[in-house]
Amino acid sequence: MASSSLLCFGLCLLVLFNACFAQIEQVTDITREGKQQRQRQQRFQTQCNIQNLNALEPRQKVESEAGVTEFWDQNNEQLQCANVAVFRQRIQQRGLLVPAYTNTPEIFYVVQVVFPGCAETFQDSQQQQSFQGSKSQDQHQKVRQLREGDVIALPAGAAHWIYNNGRDQLVLVALVDVGNSQNQLDQYFRKFYLGGNPQPQLQGFSQSQGGRSQGSQGSDDGRGGNLFRGFDERLLAEAFNVNPDLIRRLQRPQIQRGIIIRVEEELRVLSPQRDREQEQEECEETPSYERDNGFEETICTMKLRHNIDKPSHADVYNPRAGRVTTVNRFNLPILRDLQLSAEKGNLYPNALLAPQWNLNAHSIVYVTRGNGRMQIVAENGENVFDGQIREGQLIVVPQGFAVVKRAGNRGLEWISFKTNDVAMTSQLAGRASVLRGLPLDVIQNSFQVSRDEAQRLKYNRQELTVFTPGPRSQWGLTVA
Amino acid sequence: MASSSLLCFGLCLLVLFNACFAQIEQVTDITREGKQQRQRQQRFQTQCNIQNLNALEPRQKVESEAGVTEFWDQNNEQLQCANVAVFRQRIQQRGLLVPAYTNTPEIFYVVQVVFPGCAETFQDSQQQQSFQGSKSQDQHQKVRQLREGDVIALPAGAAHWIYNNGRDQLVLVALVDVGNSQNQLDQYFRKFYLGGNPQPQLQGFSQSQGGRSQGSQGSDDGRGGNLFRGFDERLLAEAFNVNPDLIRRLQRPQIQRGIIIRVEEELRVLSPQRDREQEQEECEETPSYERDNGFEETICTMKLRHNIDKPSHADVYNPRAGRVTTVNRFNLPILRDLQLSAEKGNLYPNALLAPQWNLNAHSIVYVTRGNGRMQIVAENGENVFDGQIREGQLIVVPQGFAVVKRAGNRGLEWISFKTNDVAMTSQLAGRASVLRGLPLDVIQNSFQVSRDEAQRLKYNRQELTVFTPGPRSQWGLTVA
Amino acid sequence: MASSSLLCFGLCLLVLFNACFAQIEQVTDITREGKQQRQRQQRFQTQCNIQNLNALEPRQKVESEAGVTEFWDQNNEQLQCANVAVFRQRIQQRGLLVPAYTNTPEIFYVVQVVFPGCAETFQDSQQQQSFQGSKSQDQHQKVRQLREGDVIALPAGAAHWIYNNGRDQLVLVALVDVGNSQNQLDQYFRKFYLGGNPQPQLQGFSQSQGGRSQGSQGSDDGRGGNLFRGFDERLLAEAFNVNPDLIRRLQRPQIQRGIIIRVEEELRVLSPQRDREQEQEECEETPSYERDNGFEETICTMKLRHNIDKPSHADVYNPRAGRVTTVNRFNLPILRDLQLSAEKGNLYPNALLAPQWNLNAHSIVYVTRGNGRMQIVAENGENVFDGQIREGQLIVVPQGFAVVKRAGNRGLEWISFKTNDVAMTSQLAGRASVLRGLPLDVIQNSFQVSRDEAQRLKYNRQELTVFTPGPRSQWGLTVA
Repeated sequence: MASSSLLCFGLCLLVLFNACFAQIEQVTDITREGKQQRQRQQRFQTQCNIQNLNALEPRQKVESEAGVTEFWDQNNEQLQCANVAVFRQRIQQRGLLVPAYTNTPEIFYVVQVVFPGCAETFQDSQQQQSFQGSKSQDQHQKVRQLREGDVIALPAGAAHWIYNNGRDQLVLVALVDVGNSQNQLDQYFRKFYLGGNPQPQLQGFSQSQGGRSQGSQGSDDGRGGNLFRGFDERLLAEAFNVNPDLIRRLQRPQIQRGIIIRVEEELRVLSPQRDREQEQEECEETPSYERDNGFEETICTMKLRHNIDKPSHADVYNPRAGRVTTVNRFNLPILRDLQLSAEKGNLYPNALLAPQWNLNAHSIVYVTRGNGRMQIVAENGENVFDGQIREGQLIVVPQGFAVVKRAGNRGLEWISFKTNDVAMTSQLAGRASVLRGLPLDVIQNSFQVSRDEAQRLKYNRQELTVFTPGPRSQWGLTVA
Repeated sequence: MASSSLLCFGLCLLVLFNACFAQIEQVTDITREGKQQRQRQQRFQTQCNIQNLNALEPRQKVESEAGVTEFWDQNNEQLQCANVAVFRQRIQQRGLLVPAYTNTPEIFYVVQVVFPGCAETFQDSQQQQSFQGSKSQDQHQKVRQLREGDVIALPAGAAHWIYNNGRDQLVLVALVDVGNSQNQLDQYFRKFYLGGNPQPQLQGFSQSQGGRSQGSQGSDDGRGGNLFRGFDERLLAEAFNVNPDLIRRLQRPQIQRGIIIRVEEELRVLSPQRDREQEQEECEETPSYERDNGFEETICTMKLRHNIDKPSHADVYNPRAGRVTTVNRFNLPILRDLQLSAEKGNLYPNALLAPQWNLNAHSIVYVTRGNGRMQIVAENGENVFDGQIREGQLIVVPQGFAVVKRAGNRGLEWISFKTNDVAMTSQLAGRASVLRGLPLDVIQNSFQVSRDEAQRLKYNRQELTVFTPGPRSQWGLTVA
Repeated sequence: MASSSLLCFGLCLLVLFNACFAQIEQVTDITREGKQQRQRQQRFQTQCNIQNLNALEPRQKVESEAGVTEFWDQNNEQLQCANVAVFRQRIQQRGLLVPAYTNTPEIFYVVQVVFPGCAETFQDSQQQQSFQGSKSQDQHQKVRQLREGDVIALPAGAAHWIYNNGRDQLVLVALVDVGNSQNQLDQYFRKFYLGGNPQPQLQGFSQSQGGRSQGSQGSDDGRGGNLFRGFDERLLAEAFNVNPDLIRRLQRPQIQRGIIIRVEEELRVLSPQRDREQEQEECEETPSYERDNGFEETICTMKLRHNIDKPSHADVYNPRAGRVTTVNRFNLPILRDLQLSAEKGNLYPNALLAPQWNLNAHSIVYVTRGNGRMQIVAENGENVFDGQIREGQLIVVPQGFAVVKRAGNRGLEWISFKTNDVAMTSQLAGRASVLRGLPLDVIQNSFQVSRDEAQRLKYNRQELTVFTPGPRSQWGLTVA
């Protein structure tokens, strides 16, 4: 699995903003200002009475024609503490995830795209604004090409669709930030589908204890449906200026149920072909964001994607132990608005990630490959998690809690979603650790150790964040 | 009713800030910085278990000497979801709404000012700072002139009074944003009156279920009263350096109860007369905000008012169907701090507003004139409102919910208060719609329609937001 | 007690940020942007059903070897309304408060440092980044020198330690802002100790009614402990590259219990000596923040301290009545991120502070010296507090509530922590008051007084905020 490949793979994503036409003036203003500010999010209040954390697997599975949606349990106390919902989409070849939007920001990671294929598909914005004289030429917004290792950020209310134009399954892990300030509704995650014939349990689920029923009892009773279903067909017919018969088919498509639809022939979208070199350059270039003065930018051309798997993007790289890469508001500016960021970790076999804590964020860790051991410690020094975690599992590290990771024999890779656009961590050991910042006398007195011992605690580990397994590295192997 | 008249009508508003004197340095800084940033609000958490929405009329009525205050029911679930309180003030001729402040931001719309009159009334700030040698010349802060169609924004804690110097009733609709980040108290709306003899039920009401009693049982039991009443009279006498007898009258004015007091003679405020042309220019000019470097600006001279009824201000105008005008932080910068905005809609008879959803705000819709039909749809495709709405009624469109409006035979006008300083909408039909942004193949597959049908759905409605009634426009007439 | 002395006293504070090494690029960006923006905090929602306020003394006391920690009652309704926790540290001579961090921002005031001593202690950052060739030279982060009257601001998650290198007791009053947007956990205040052997009741307490038990039953049962205790010793041994035996001592130091440890010999930290003039200059200078372009600044060199007791810093000074000094985001920029500010008041005997209200903040008042009388009034004109308040007592003035203070015979000094980085007040009497901003006719009509009386109410008190006791000043003496 070439997780750091520079190839652009077969998957299309479209984010739809109405802002492109009517509100273009305002939007450029937003973008311009967005560059100058830092925003602050207050998350919805939750209970974090954490006695025990667990490595979690998805609990509910909803099958569509050309794919599967798997949800983690929303009533789990660690997801409630972080106030997020997590789900995984498995989209088969030629599967189309129908257009939809949510009441919260969403961030997702492209876990797997097996067979490559490369087609950047979009229509130039100049063309887009010209009037469509001949309807034979389809006109639509920019379609973005995704690759394995991409992190995609979506604002609340932004409609989007995904099509798998690769040759095998596409897997996405998505975090829905229910506690985000962009969500003004309650803690019930709601998905508004613009197409397809969605089952009720795909349209929302309760994050809080009480609230609505989860609607999981059945999908054939006529409940559920896309957004058009709730309008009067004659009113829609007038709004669209089409025949009411066509509206009825819009409201209740005669297709197999579900939200992931198999496209019979390959999906055609306008797509200027680019060769691989161009693609690669485009992937490497700095966002136009940082070069331009911001006035030309609109939310429609805003960067929503960042590849977090490229070794050249690593923030910390230890050739003998692995690397850590982050995406936050500095390299993906839309995260400023979404108050989210992400970290990708790659640990070589038996390597360690420095024990550390999150100063200002929760961290929702999903293991993308391999396995390892994690320990998590609460404020009273109690261990709230000590165990193995492996590919496909999820665990929450709450704000302030200290955590250490150690890769197993086959290495450990994970994606951590963080509930802050500039999530900061502080380390307990290593060259950038708090102990390194303490005077020796403070270490001596705080722990009643000798000056020599204090020096060893402070200076014996010279590496930065990713530690090579030492001669004492039997720990992980014998215990795990 | 010349709702788009450029005349300045007879009504005075004063916003009092202590900041003008002592904290002037800080305030200029705030203003300057205010230009460069975007803030983010997290609203208080609420329940939005919306099964049904209703067109609401005010539920409680409190009479004062020279006017009436009408409250919408705070326990209504749709107002609780949006976490706002709404009331309407009807101020008779020569009625003075006594000075007061609240613990939340407030935004209000001047619905009606029947007979014109025009006097801009203020004292120049240079004069203001000179010492009052002769007390015969009254000195006070700038008094702002209001007109029909004005939207006024007030920060939390800002004291203000309103005087109707017109010849007939003045009607205001006010939204109190209990869920706003400027409110650090609980969800109980509190009004602190500096004068008059207010009834208890005017001083606050519970937004949340539990909490305090509403105090509506009576106003004669001595409970209630203005803010001075709670202080020791001797202490106030010392603070004001006046006789305690005068303080007693400050605390319990011997006037008819209520908060709207009839002024016997016309209220005199220093008022340099301006002719109508000047007035008009002043109304048209861009806020000095955008021209100056911000250092000269203080919160005292900050723009708090924007007229939303002028056709020249329309964001979208369709000569055959109507117009939509918005006020947000771009044309009224104080809204940046208040995290609020507003939209005025004017639909001609039988015209439609494009079906749409709010990406990042709730919309609290008050019908100012005419009537029409609205439909609102939840995330599961369920219709939560389908009915008539007419002048004087209120309805909440929660974030994400899709809505369509259609004017009745006499047209439809509304003011929508929105809980975001840059509320964004996305449309389902029309030239700026999400369907226009979708490739034809995505439409074909999402709805199982032919390519020709997909083209009709995408291109048949060319208008932007305000749609002319088509040949199929019998819908509203026959069904409604 | 020379509370306004310019001497630098004997106390060291170190704030540890991991950001200094690994994330230095990001941090400079943060700092740079920090200069241009204003952030907005939404506080966690609370109940503020205030019928009665009280002057509070600490309720729980936890003794450490070299000091005492005293907590105010977290279940008190006024502290719950403000959503803060308050505690007082008394650190004896040579007492070391062990390194720790919390899940919330913290702001504290240095109440008392009895015997002076002056040593600025730090290592230059250039030196710090050089590799430690000889371990005999200790290298650590900047150590900041504290003085009486200093206000210190700490972000959530920032580890810090305090050492009293003076000759007598050091007293700190600290506010822990549980409702702050930087706290993403619940309303349970948690303290994570990196050293020492803390008792459970020092590690957190519930701010909300339910939640966790307070763990105050005992400290010898093995519960409680520093953060290292929760990790596997072999894993830590590997992370630190030291012997597991040393880790065991890190986890359970063989020292007297508690968080304030007596240092046997004087604590040695690298400390370039400065003479007093330099010290004084350093105290006076504008923060480099405002001079530089921000690129050189890092959070490690960020200003965290501001002395609020210097008469030259006073915002309002009345030579016959006293002074008021504020620290907010304009003179201590980190407060922008923390959404907090503070006010120091010094009233001469029998002087008054103008009756006023907080527009946008709660005010948590701690009396540092003397005594006086306070009155607090709610929105309905009800008096919710009328009584004496004296040194060592605490009271909350909720947002919007009106308050007046009057010093007793020996004067009154207080520190008010405010839950907004630019807390604004509006005054009822005096030169900057709302009454001064009202036209005489509005005063006449609102209170039914004559024009002459209105003029007296408006103009009789010429002072700004701090009022001299007048001939009518018997009030405080006779009643109190």
